[in-house]
Amino acid sequence: MRREKDLTEAVALVAADMAAHVGHGKVADYIPALARIDPRQFGLAVATCDGRWAAAGDAETPFSIQSISKVFTLTLALERMGEALWKRVGREPSGSSFNSIVQLEREHGVPRNPLINAGALVVTDCLIAGRAPGLLIEELTAFLRARAADPSVSIDEEVAGSEARTGFRNASLANFLRAFDNLQNPVADVLEVYFHQCALAMSCRQLARAGLFLANAGVDPLNGARVTTAMRARRINAIMMSCGHYDASGDFAFRVGLPGKSGVGGGILAIAPGRGAAAVWSPGLNPAGTSFVGMMALQRLSAVLQWSVF
Amino acid sequence: MRREKDLTEAVALVAADMAAHVGHGKVADYIPALARIDPRQFGLAVATCDGRWAAAGDAETPFSIQSISKVFTLTLALERMGEALWKRVGREPSGSSFNSIVQLEREHGVPRNPLINAGALVVTDCLIAGRAPGLLIEELTAFLRARAADPSVSIDEEVAGSEARTGFRNASLANFLRAFDNLQNPVADVLEVYFHQCALAMSCRQLARAGLFLANAGVDPLNGARVTTAMRARRINAIMMSCGHYDASGDFAFRVGLPGKSGVGGGILAIAPGRGAAAVWSPGLNPAGTSFVGMMALQRLSAVLQWSVF
Amino acid sequence: MRREKDLTEAVALVAADMAAHVGHGKVADYIPALARIDPRQFGLAVATCDGRWAAAGDAETPFSIQSISKVFTLTLALERMGEALWKRVGREPSGSSFNSIVQLEREHGVPRNPLINAGALVVTDCLIAGRAPGLLIEELTAFLRARAADPSVSIDEEVAGSEARTGFRNASLANFLRAFDNLQNPVADVLEVYFHQCALAMSCRQLARAGLFLANAGVDPLNGARVTTAMRARRINAIMMSCGHYDASGDFAFRVGLPGKSGVGGGILAIAPGRGAAAVWSPGLNPAGTSFVGMMALQRLSAVLQWSVF
Amino acid sequence: MRREKDLTEAVALVAADMAAHVGHGKVADYIPALARIDPRQFGLAVATCDGRWAAAGDAETPFSIQSISKVFTLTLALERMGEALWKRVGREPSGSSFNSIVQLEREHGVPRNPLINAGALVVTDCLIAGRAPGLLIEELTAFLRARAADPSVSIDEEVAGSEARTGFRNASLANFLRAFDNLQNPVADVLEVYFHQCALAMSCRQLARAGLFLANAGVDPLNGARVTTAMRARRINAIMMSCGHYDASGDFAFRVGLPGKSGVGGGILAIAPGRGAAAVWSPGLNPAGTSFVGMMALQRLSAVLQWSVF
Repeated sequence: MRREKDLTEAVALVAADMAAHVGHGKVADYIPALARIDPRQFGLAVATCDGRWAAAGDAETPFSIQSISKVFTLTLALERMGEALWKRVGREPSGSSFNSIVQLEREHGVPRNPLINAGALVVTDCLIAGRAPGLLIEELTAFLRARAADPSVSIDEEVAGSEARTGFRNASLANFLRAFDNLQNPVADVLEVYFHQCALAMSCRQLARAGLFLANAGVDPLNGARVTTAMRARRINAIMMSCGHYDASGDFAFRVGLPGKSGVGGGILAIAPGRGAAAVWSPGLNPAGTSFVGMMALQRLSAVLQWSVF
Repeated sequence: MRREKDLTEAVALVAADMAAHVGHGKVADYIPALARIDPRQFGLAVATCDGRWAAAGDAETPFSIQSISKVFTLTLALERMGEALWKRVGREPSGSSFNSIVQLEREHGVPRNPLINAGALVVTDCLIAGRAPGLLIEELTAFLRARAADPSVSIDEEVAGSEARTGFRNASLANFLRAFDNLQNPVADVLEVYFHQCALAMSCRQLARAGLFLANAGVDPLNGARVTTAMRARRINAIMMSCGHYDASGDFAFRVGLPGKSGVGGGILAIAPGRGAAAVWSPGLNPAGTSFVGMMALQRLSAVLQWSVF
Repeated sequence: MRREKDLTEAVALVAADMAAHVGHGKVADYIPALARIDPRQFGLAVATCDGRWAAAGDAETPFSIQSISKVFTLTLALERMGEALWKRVGREPSGSSFNSIVQLEREHGVPRNPLINAGALVVTDCLIAGRAPGLLIEELTAFLRARAADPSVSIDEEVAGSEARTGFRNASLANFLRAFDNLQNPVADVLEVYFHQCALAMSCRQLARAGLFLANAGVDPLNGARVTTAMRARRINAIMMSCGHYDASGDFAFRVGLPGKSGVGGGILAIAPGRGAAAVWSPGLNPAGTSFVGMMALQRLSAVLQWSVF
Repeated sequence: MRREKDLTEAVALVAADMAAHVGHGKVADYIPALARIDPRQFGLAVATCDGRWAAAGDAETPFSIQSISKVFTLTLALERMGEALWKRVGREPSGSSFNSIVQLEREHGVPRNPLINAGALVVTDCLIAGRAPGLLIEELTAFLRARAADPSVSIDEEVAGSEARTGFRNASLANFLRAFDNLQNPVADVLEVYFHQCALAMSCRQLARAGLFLANAGVDPLNGARVTTAMRARRINAIMMSCGHYDASGDFAFRVGLPGKSGVGGGILAIAPGRGAAAVWSPGLNPAGTSFVGMMALQRLSAVLQWSVF
């Protein structure tokens, strides 16, 4: 990728605008290993389909991508099992975090979409398909390394372990799904993979690079690798637009106007179809669990670059 | 507007593909005046920002736009009261029709978004602002005539009367909102305007024309009239994408990839930002209350014209 | 009825114990005519099946019986339409006030029980059965006068009017029920009767006397009038035990151990099968909408008289 | 205990009346070891506080008491930790099975009452209090042997194992409670005890005998042992009345008029305060999960013996 002045200026402008806000929000405290992160960090990276890139702040610092991993496991699961996936998970927004488990009950164990925890557990179960958990964890890591074009992407085992010890809500969801026969592998295996995928550590630069195939109809624009079909890339973007930020998905569409996915580690990946991908990171979260400064930065970036799809 | 061959061919192709499906779905039966409509009708019209247009089937037949009217009242209310509107209504998808009333209770009478019935009642209440209902009904009709560039747009009084006699759910919602002090005008006034706005009768041609300002950053591209700001146009599109089809909004984004709004009269308006607007009509509904053939036609049209924003 | 020393002493003891608490709780403020009541009032009356009675405090002051009226309309409706009533209303506790409207939706417009507002509206609709509202209001007044053996029982028209002007939640519920075809009379008629029955004003003495037939297998023990069958009296008591205090019904059973029904006017009627009836009144409410001091008094009274059915 | 003719005749009459119905209902199929039970079995036993007893049918056949065990663990937990228990579990009916988990979320992990699964898991957690699970299981078995005055009461290990392998819903609930810090012991320990207490096998005769202390103000009337205080016995009865049959508790109160607790093994224990206890067993369940014939038998028995508390 080559750096370019205009893009660099835009990114620098956004980063400068954020300086006054960095540190706002509340670091996720329910995963002990995340609760210790210094909230006064901010990174931003943009990669474009035509090979330009720009970055600002702590764009090289790896952070826990957490729920952003759901975009990548969804991509893989669609490649492996195709549209049959949609028998086991829906693609509607969940309304609110509050409703997720009651909707799961009402809807007989079929999660609303693959970007909420329940849906992502089903996606992970689809990927396991009899594999040893450790093997799948290696495959996921390899997939992200390939997408980021960077072999240094790896899992933060401390975070993975921390989640395994405290992830009672996810354990509850997984058992619930299993009670509805919507998990086929042992609950412990699904949770092991899930906690590891959430603990993947990536920098903004790596993450923006990794998202490019979604902006380019399923093909990595920099090395020509086909990751998924054009239709699936579009549809993954559609799901990110509708469901990427739990009960603040509508607000993200309203403010940013791009498909995106946030994680409680403070990262957000946003896709500008036909243009490029942006990754932002700042650990303080808003009440909906999305990076406070990260969302503000993407709103600004989308306006400056005129990237809104609307 | 000038007709153009390529666009005409695309529209004709989609219409031809739909022939085998027309008549599928179930006509809305809870409004007696709508229950009598012949389901074997289909109309499609496309208007572009650069002045082309094309149509097929029953594109000149007026139908009851029903909930599509919510897009236009939202536009007007944002112009009149600005961002203060968002104190009284949210912009998040509602999850499912089922949840709407319980969410209304949980969230203290603030509807999830302006495109569900509860939210649209609040928007209508904002527009009344002390006006006589009859006066506002005339203003709304005039607004739609201006948008459609056609003075023949009018309200089907039989449908309005039919809804007034049977609209107990809307009466329930309006009283509920009033109990939370989120209606400021008399319940009867709000319902009178609401039942009339839903009873606006428009053809596909008129409706596609009326939606163009949303595809063109708030300015009617054919006569230069500024209807709303560019930012508001984008945000209305974002809300249509997230919330335009009740509990099938995610599926519409997934399949069609455009902001849209459906009505139980069988019409759907879709916006392709920067390109144009499409209106489709076929009375048979899918279980989510969206035109069965209409949604299929828009999915096909979006693919043929490569209009998906994703 | 004759006064008796032991009973009088027990009642006086309870009243004395309450002196330190009178004035606690919060007067219902959503009905303007009730919001003005002085909270520092307390009345208690006990009537027994063998003709004794005792009273203390403001036991002769009429107060708005509000939801306690539901017990009497239920009695009348069961007499008029028999067990067919149970096709239109259930007899299960509602879990919590929060759930009532969503359960109404889930359960297709059949309210959980006749002692929540939705269920009482259905009961009132059953009683109307084509009558003019005014006529039914007169019948209800006559029924309560007969039960209280006191022709001075009457409706507080100011309270009835106050509720009619502000009762948007009940209007919402009534329209909701009508949308499910579980009201057969015009919504306005049902609400008119309902707001009047809630506005019946009775003293503790009158109310305890009026409840005696429920303690005596359906027969008024003092004049021999059969009001309902023994089985129905038992079953009404069972419903009061399960459902008489909204989402604090379990707590009332736990603490008092008697079938009871509270009203937001601050009154509570409790039935001791085979023994007698007690009525208490103190306007300050606990968070569940039951008289704060009233419930405390009944807990004490039940212990002193050893009236708990458990 | 001595048999007595009148009581024996009443029990025989009820049993004879049930003959035509035995086999109705549906055996619980989600616990494999229970699904194999022959539904054409029926047992009934009555024990009175004054030492009489009577039985009919398969009253000596041990069956899995399942949720009836919750009454006994509640008794023990109240003895051990007193009223502090009510900080961790409520005493309100849950409205419906459907709502239990969403209420658990809304109410921050405090289950509605100790007789639904979530509440019983908390009670079991209270009893563990650092004990080894196996030790507590022994204590529970010993407690039931003492209550039944029969050392042959024991746990059906096959049923316990079957539940452990398939109890994903209970595992989900336990993890959920732990996520809210309302379990203090390891999830696996709580589930181990829980699955064993549900697998206690008792006959109708043993169960009726075991319930007598609840009919007798907390004292075993036949050997004078004080099991709990009079107030606690009354309160446990109150909770059984309000909450003993999930979302059919109101119907049980309405029909039977006695505190009771059912289990999906087909057993029901009913308490007649001051009189005695009855246990019935027939494996076929009604849609609410209560023994179809068992409930019918108790309704008849309560009428014949005039045991209704109402």
